[in-house]
Amino acid sequence: MPNPVELSYWQCESILRAEVLGRIAFSAPDGPHILPINFSVVDEAIIMRTSPDSLLATHGCGVTVAFEVDYIRHNYRRGCSVVARGETEIVTDPAEAAHINRVWEPRPWAGGARPLLLRLRWGELSGRQLDAGWDPLSEMPVRRTETRPR
Amino acid sequence: MPNPVELSYWQCESILRAEVLGRIAFSAPDGPHILPINFSVVDEAIIMRTSPDSLLATHGCGVTVAFEVDYIRHNYRRGCSVVARGETEIVTDPAEAAHINRVWEPRPWAGGARPLLLRLRWGELSGRQLDAGWDPLSEMPVRRTETRPR
Repeated sequence: MPNPVELSYWQCESILRAEVLGRIAFSAPDGPHILPINFSVVDEAIIMRTSPDSLLATHGCGVTVAFEVDYIRHNYRRGCSVVARGETEIVTDPAEAAHINRVWEPRPWAGGARPLLLRLRWGELSGRQLDAGWDPLSEMPVRRTETRPR
Repeated sequence: MPNPVELSYWQCESILRAEVLGRIAFSAPDGPHILPINFSVVDEAIIMRTSPDSLLATHGCGVTVAFEVDYIRHNYRRGCSVVARGETEIVTDPAEAAHINRVWEPRPWAGGARPLLLRLRWGELSGRQLDAGWDPLSEMPVRRTETRPR
């Protein structure tokens, strides 16, 4: 069985920037939660949208969270994953929000109002791939350009 | 944009039993962590393997965790996810371990010794799919039979 191989910072960032859907983990009084969520990457931060009454807004703002993206090939029993960790914050400055919307606005697939912009500036970024003999970036189905305004 | 639809308990359990790779979230002194991990389902519990010196063994045993599986179709901007939450425990009883190995042994894709059997009996099991007009189970690439002994 293959051993996991650590990805470089550059590879981690490239994989993060190629995806549009990840999973955020945050702690609540009743323990950890995981939530799949659409995101974008602007500058050195993950940007998400949420609603003020969500579990994420209630327990996931201004705290340390973990955010994961992965690409899994079941048939080959291989894959890669990238985890970003750091503190989140709500973007309240209109100039910063305008910058985010100009560069790469997060586009939730799900309907519903999500007026809050949540930013995760990663302090840690690490990743692994299972089996060294393939290039995740060349296989991943998603490219950032897919989410750009048309 | 489509609204998320809640999955029934039966659908959640079926999706969980169809997958072999999920993500576990647990809290450590430095905040939440997410880890992709292979698993199986035996009776009403998720079974994983880990090594005694792992972050998961150190901080994820005997505590509440969240465990997630999902199936994402980027091209259609839809997907489904199931989250199980509950307390983990190390399986130490040889009879229970033998039962697990007989029913459906978790098979890590990665090399390395993982002698600890970690069990998550879910207290909560919930899930959602984006867009009601498709059946995740008929599209998911993985079936439990793939991991059965040959």
